[in-house]
Amino acid sequence: MALVSIGVAGASGYAGQELIRLAARHPFIRVTTAMASGSTDGARTLPALTGVWDGQITPLSLDQLAAETQAVFMTLPDSVAAEVGPALVARGVRVFDIGGTFRLHDRTLRHQWYPTTPDLEIPVVYGLTEHYRRELVEARLVACPGCYPTAALLALRPLIDANLIDGDVIIDAKSGISGAGKKPSERTHFSECHGNVAAYGVLGHRHGAEIEQELRQTVTFTPHLVPLDRGLLATSYVRVRPDVDDTAIAATFASAYASSPFVRVRGDALPEIKHVVHTNFCDIGWKYDDASRRLVLVSCLDNLVKGAAGQALQNLNVAFGWDETAGLS
Amino acid sequence: MALVSIGVAGASGYAGQELIRLAARHPFIRVTTAMASGSTDGARTLPALTGVWDGQITPLSLDQLAAETQAVFMTLPDSVAAEVGPALVARGVRVFDIGGTFRLHDRTLRHQWYPTTPDLEIPVVYGLTEHYRRELVEARLVACPGCYPTAALLALRPLIDANLIDGDVIIDAKSGISGAGKKPSERTHFSECHGNVAAYGVLGHRHGAEIEQELRQTVTFTPHLVPLDRGLLATSYVRVRPDVDDTAIAATFASAYASSPFVRVRGDALPEIKHVVHTNFCDIGWKYDDASRRLVLVSCLDNLVKGAAGQALQNLNVAFGWDETAGLS
Amino acid sequence: MALVSIGVAGASGYAGQELIRLAARHPFIRVTTAMASGSTDGARTLPALTGVWDGQITPLSLDQLAAETQAVFMTLPDSVAAEVGPALVARGVRVFDIGGTFRLHDRTLRHQWYPTTPDLEIPVVYGLTEHYRRELVEARLVACPGCYPTAALLALRPLIDANLIDGDVIIDAKSGISGAGKKPSERTHFSECHGNVAAYGVLGHRHGAEIEQELRQTVTFTPHLVPLDRGLLATSYVRVRPDVDDTAIAATFASAYASSPFVRVRGDALPEIKHVVHTNFCDIGWKYDDASRRLVLVSCLDNLVKGAAGQALQNLNVAFGWDETAGLS
Amino acid sequence: MALVSIGVAGASGYAGQELIRLAARHPFIRVTTAMASGSTDGARTLPALTGVWDGQITPLSLDQLAAETQAVFMTLPDSVAAEVGPALVARGVRVFDIGGTFRLHDRTLRHQWYPTTPDLEIPVVYGLTEHYRRELVEARLVACPGCYPTAALLALRPLIDANLIDGDVIIDAKSGISGAGKKPSERTHFSECHGNVAAYGVLGHRHGAEIEQELRQTVTFTPHLVPLDRGLLATSYVRVRPDVDDTAIAATFASAYASSPFVRVRGDALPEIKHVVHTNFCDIGWKYDDASRRLVLVSCLDNLVKGAAGQALQNLNVAFGWDETAGLS
Repeated sequence: MALVSIGVAGASGYAGQELIRLAARHPFIRVTTAMASGSTDGARTLPALTGVWDGQITPLSLDQLAAETQAVFMTLPDSVAAEVGPALVARGVRVFDIGGTFRLHDRTLRHQWYPTTPDLEIPVVYGLTEHYRRELVEARLVACPGCYPTAALLALRPLIDANLIDGDVIIDAKSGISGAGKKPSERTHFSECHGNVAAYGVLGHRHGAEIEQELRQTVTFTPHLVPLDRGLLATSYVRVRPDVDDTAIAATFASAYASSPFVRVRGDALPEIKHVVHTNFCDIGWKYDDASRRLVLVSCLDNLVKGAAGQALQNLNVAFGWDETAGLS
Repeated sequence: MALVSIGVAGASGYAGQELIRLAARHPFIRVTTAMASGSTDGARTLPALTGVWDGQITPLSLDQLAAETQAVFMTLPDSVAAEVGPALVARGVRVFDIGGTFRLHDRTLRHQWYPTTPDLEIPVVYGLTEHYRRELVEARLVACPGCYPTAALLALRPLIDANLIDGDVIIDAKSGISGAGKKPSERTHFSECHGNVAAYGVLGHRHGAEIEQELRQTVTFTPHLVPLDRGLLATSYVRVRPDVDDTAIAATFASAYASSPFVRVRGDALPEIKHVVHTNFCDIGWKYDDASRRLVLVSCLDNLVKGAAGQALQNLNVAFGWDETAGLS
Repeated sequence: MALVSIGVAGASGYAGQELIRLAARHPFIRVTTAMASGSTDGARTLPALTGVWDGQITPLSLDQLAAETQAVFMTLPDSVAAEVGPALVARGVRVFDIGGTFRLHDRTLRHQWYPTTPDLEIPVVYGLTEHYRRELVEARLVACPGCYPTAALLALRPLIDANLIDGDVIIDAKSGISGAGKKPSERTHFSECHGNVAAYGVLGHRHGAEIEQELRQTVTFTPHLVPLDRGLLATSYVRVRPDVDDTAIAATFASAYASSPFVRVRGDALPEIKHVVHTNFCDIGWKYDDASRRLVLVSCLDNLVKGAAGQALQNLNVAFGWDETAGLS
Repeated sequence: MALVSIGVAGASGYAGQELIRLAARHPFIRVTTAMASGSTDGARTLPALTGVWDGQITPLSLDQLAAETQAVFMTLPDSVAAEVGPALVARGVRVFDIGGTFRLHDRTLRHQWYPTTPDLEIPVVYGLTEHYRRELVEARLVACPGCYPTAALLALRPLIDANLIDGDVIIDAKSGISGAGKKPSERTHFSECHGNVAAYGVLGHRHGAEIEQELRQTVTFTPHLVPLDRGLLATSYVRVRPDVDDTAIAATFASAYASSPFVRVRGDALPEIKHVVHTNFCDIGWKYDDASRRLVLVSCLDNLVKGAAGQALQNLNVAFGWDETAGLS
């Protein structure tokens, strides 16, 4: 079988490099084209990838991407992705966007959180693999979920779908610093992060809107930066309906993820970030208090793998009809 | 003024050493007696404290403590504290317990969480300084609050006292590893903690009972270990009553802590652990959403200072009628 | 081709688990037998490996290992390895020992540093893959190098072999905490390691003897623990002979590692731990000062991969005549 | 006694803030004037210091500094310090420079490493307190040592002064990231530092020239960044003269630092960063091998305290004739 030619647009960021690292091991694809997020930087190599992928990162070029690739992974600034994505689709390339540009379906919300995104003529599939496999098969433009929404939704969506939850949903999430990207800033300075925990975007983070879209209800979402590099853990607080018990909760998860190789349902053995870093797994566990009907869910993943590059590749696998785990196990 | 002679029972642990470090700078006291938590270990010095406090840690001896000191700080195993504390009080020594043994007033709860604690004849003051100054003046036995309760209560107690809150209280807390003590274990092994976040004691941590006692209502409390040494941040989720607005919230905090030198009310400039480590400050901030009446509070402190040794010293200052900040600023 | 059946003796430690993780991806082998380091622990699974390797860790049994496997990786306590290793070889199993038991050839030194190791009738191959490929082909018992020696020797051995060095060799090494093993201790307690750097085993670490054996000269070797989990960086200080210049140094490394896929010769782009963790690469760089003839070499690797499990698998690949990179790229 | 009015020029950096924190506790001084490192930034407060020091940081103004202060601590960019320092001295203000601008006495070396420093008419005292107390009393312009030189020199200078050393001096140093300053960069980005160790400035760091000046001999100096915030440990390798033994080494250190409250001579109990952070101590230990006459010295300090702000204050204490430990114990 001929290898499918892949492009990475935004190859110098953390998600882009993780994607190249994973793609280098994938049996059915080949990264032919890796580009920076802008058109002016010169070509350069990635020292950490010597011997793994020895190509060069070149300036961003739409024409070259369209000419050389069958599918493109994008991790671009919003306004750039907003242009490049639809243009590539128009030229027959399948696009898997790791950024947020195309995630929100509602026009008003999209204008609020991603003002540069145009109104699209083409359909967008929200790439939470485990819940949109069918839609992915025909997808031309896939909006891969954010890292926080992936962890939160994989834990909460089955409960919402099964109508087990009653009342407020609170999501308290803790993320490693690589989630804030590669650009140096005071926020990501080692001396500011080391020994520190900080909440940010409280009651106003765009991943909140994304989670609400997919849960079809309002949530309170608070992200925190914790002093580690990779990994994200979400603690979700809900109350279940009166007639729900522990068995029903366990059965809901078991059934939701029976055929999902990358979701590990842990029950009351609560997952930890340590178990999932450098893998495409999302682990989900919970504790339930019968008396108060309060349910505390813990879900975690590697923000650069299942929360970004890994899930994008998983989506590619489904979209191209390959084994969902190809290149990821 | 003659210096007050102080004993530290449990001087080899992290809180004990922090106490000695702070006490060495205190203008009115002198650590005359520092003891291990058991009676069999030999005498030894603390290398990190050379030149700061050059005494020796000796085996635990009730007689010696009673003979040599006017006040004792205890950080002992529960069952040992349960014996030593009342015995010292009976012999005229004022006791400031940093452990949990005497914190719970309710007999049933105390038996559940601290089974070795006897029923006491003597009154115990819960040493959350800012809310019990009056009681501290006469106190013979002070149960200093746990690190998690201190952070949570300083943020929530004023709202409860002012009757601003309606419905569930959820507290999601993140603590550095020194909170788990000095004894090596798999849980505190560097390689297990580094790069990791883990929830523990979910829906069953004894600090939850302590918080409920002081808030006089049930709460959902989830502690997490995050990979840093010192510091603790609590994110609390509540809904305020219909007639409450942002101004009322701010006024409540301003009034509650107007005369409290160690509580810094930050408003919507959310506090971070970085700002409070190695200090006795507890910083409190919040974000409020008018539409949903959801209020998210963030409070943080150094678990070994305001969450342990510092608050104990602050209680001593109040109990002995000194400036509350003596030795702490 | 039928898969070769592999045993792991000492599967609960960090190196053992890394080995299982790597072996699960290896195209030619199958871990049939994973055992604890003792014979009394019951069977258990490894939660982090769910979905990667779903076998059980069972008590150590020589008979079972001999019956079920063609090759065994050992990470056992010295005295246990000293018994198990030769016994397995005697029963026809090829043994790759990740511990130190069999590394020292000199009887006196071996008695000093590994007093439980018996005098062996069978030959032992020192498994520094890049320098002993020929010997590995026939090897029955391979003593894989320590993590420190691997980094130091890959940088220094080519210079010694080419006779470029004159005078003292000083090796200052910095290792992540996983190198100290999985057993909780004060040394590996998070609160003791976080924010700390400590030298240990100064002028008396057994890896020094191992390095001296392979360099055939005395060295000064100082290991340090630094607050990270995985990774090791060695800074080596030597003086080169009068007639040696920068070109000769570069040529020596280029020639030594021309056919070595896991050694990346970096020249004056000094390597960093970040570039090698979770890979089997050892990166080597240097700076040279013509005037003083001082040469500073920097080499680094992941102590659990190239410094332990990865190199052991690389040795297996060579010993079984497979592509050296099988399962490792 | 009236408090001495102090200025801090460069108050927003890490050393500047540490200085303000320490000065706030000092019994004889008051920070009247804290300025940014440039003249254009507006006034602002330091949230972390609320309640400790509640002044404002204002734009840099030479006139204001000269008018309001008796002594100024400078942590300014080289070219700014080169102008401000001498100008303040000319107007009668005593200057304690924490930067490197005035450290090198040799004109050629100074031009090489600090090209903007002018040739000075006024004498500069190198502020390694323990070795220049006499000179500090009259000093108008004090060049406080760099963090690396402080650790290296306190360990090596007594041996050099006593003529115990023979041959090469190699200094391998490991520093926390705060040593690289507050400016965000790829080098100080959390995700680049976490889990990483990197050598830098190998065979070409200006602190090497500073060490050579004070040891009056060439050295090989290699700094490394390690993933912690504060603290620095230097491992130094020397060979002692034939007639020197362990007793002579110990006696040399004991005599050199008998009256130095901030140097703790540890002998073969090797110091660790953990013991010195947030203090003004420099701890020194060593291991000696009789047979080879190799001596390995380990010295460590907090780069922001003894390596910067603390030592500057210590110098102020000596210069003003106060107790050397005022505000520092």
